[in-house]
Amino acid sequence: SSSVKSEPLSTTEVEALLDTIKWDSNGLVVAIAQHIDTGAILMQGFANRDAVATTMNSHLATFYSRSRANLWTKGETSSNFINVLDVFFDCDHDSIIYLGVPDGPTCHTGAETCYFTSAADILGSLQSGTKSALTTLYLLEDIIKQKKLEIEEQTTTSSNKASWTKTLLENRKLLCSKIREEADELCRSVEEDEGKDRTSSEFADVLYHAMVLLAVQDVNLQEVMKILRARFSQSGIDEKKNRKSGL
Amino acid sequence: SSSVKSEPLSTTEVEALLDTIKWDSNGLVVAIAQHIDTGAILMQGFANRDAVATTMNSHLATFYSRSRANLWTKGETSSNFINVLDVFFDCDHDSIIYLGVPDGPTCHTGAETCYFTSAADILGSLQSGTKSALTTLYLLEDIIKQKKLEIEEQTTTSSNKASWTKTLLENRKLLCSKIREEADELCRSVEEDEGKDRTSSEFADVLYHAMVLLAVQDVNLQEVMKILRARFSQSGIDEKKNRKSGL
Ligand SMILES: [Zn+2]
Ligand SMILES: [Zn+2]
Ligand SMILES: [Zn+2]
Ligand SMILES: [Zn+2]
Ligand SMILES: [Zn+2]
Ligand SMILES: [Zn+2]
Ligand SMILES: [Zn+2]
Ligand SMILES: [Zn+2]
Ligand SMILES: [Zn+2]
Repeated sequence: SSSVKSEPLSTTEVEALLDTIKWDSNGLVVAIAQHIDTGAILMQGFANRDAVATTMNSHLATFYSRSRANLWTKGETSSNFINVLDVFFDCDHDSIIYLGVPDGPTCHTGAETCYFTSAADILGSLQSGTKSALTTLYLLEDIIKQKKLEIEEQTTTSSNKASWTKTLLENRKLLCSKIREEADELCRSVEEDEGKDRTSSEFADVLYHAMVLLAVQDVNLQEVMKILRARFSQSGIDEKKNRKSGL
Repeated sequence: SSSVKSEPLSTTEVEALLDTIKWDSNGLVVAIAQHIDTGAILMQGFANRDAVATTMNSHLATFYSRSRANLWTKGETSSNFINVLDVFFDCDHDSIIYLGVPDGPTCHTGAETCYFTSAADILGSLQSGTKSALTTLYLLEDIIKQKKLEIEEQTTTSSNKASWTKTLLENRKLLCSKIREEADELCRSVEEDEGKDRTSSEFADVLYHAMVLLAVQDVNLQEVMKILRARFSQSGIDEKKNRKSGL
């Protein structure tokens, strides 16, 4: 039922590239799909030579199912394809990354990524916070969103009563004055030669306060990354868009 | 020669957690090590039950070597350990993420991650830009750093002559006035109700200009993420630091 077929690749370069991959005894490598904007690991499957070739031709993340013994393109049933912008090989060429943009949630459960089960959460060492494998910036975004939710739902527990983030979320005038102040402090760290540590710290201040404003506006950081990618990835990625076939 | 031993875990919760993992016919799962601050996929190996248990006890990413048929802790020879803050399972519990902070470069080649080979680069569809599997924000950082290098080394080719980034890198006064201006525009997008798209776009402006200033100061974005994590991950991660054993 898949509309994606493994087209034979004609270029010798692609064939030569596939020849460098160290397939295991079953002709497979581990293939990890990663979100180019958020860095989230979306899912992991296996790929044979056909699956990698198909991914390169179609720009859609394609895997080999060990249980069904066939190729499958992520999204062929759900329509949530993963649009692959580049394929990366590890140092010994037995593991690959499909770096791309998902059309929708990757997991069949509806979750953005398949990795939503945290050992720390299960073992009870997470008091609050996200259960997904979020990296720092997105973990911070999640914390801010939770504070916003607590305000909206007026759920206040002993562990979430006072919070600078909540104060900012509820006072746009204060928030905006802080953003302008922190931007000024960031600039002064350079103008007044206050050193690298001060610059790092002031950048963190600007980023945090600006992220609170994003939450106020119900904008996801992911949207901003998409804009930055469209503007600044003139190098490989834009170039690739104009190619007829292959990466 | 490893100082890390597989300590038997006593808690029934950990044993119960390990029981939920779907080990393959060789008793293994795919284990992916990811940098919590940058989102970079550092390396991928395999883990058996002992390896996952050891990782949870020692907080050091530990794998099972299929070729040598033994446990090994990343860093046991190089001292570049990966300090694991949480372990995530995918939806069908046959693939895991070790989310953590590396002590140094992960790859034996000295590269930050093992995934430094880009198919697009090899196939000649990357004109410039990074060869590593960088996500949007770090790709942008890399582009800015390259512009800075071009200025320092006075290497100007046809493709890199004019550039707003270079103008900003060479004129701190202009850069700082832009940062203050963009922060003001970001705030006005809320104050004057200009809508979500405007907020996203102005946030992107602030972030980009502030990142140019980071490059001027030779500060890596990763440093800022480290600061943010220390400040804001009060939830799971801080809590875990205080635990004597296990995640
Ligand atoms: Zn490998
Ligand atoms: Zn899933
Ligand atoms: Zn699934
Ligand atoms: Zn301040
Ligand atoms: Zn400040
Ligand atoms: Zn799985
Ligand atoms: Zn390596
Ligand atoms: Zn402007
Ligand atoms: Zn602007």
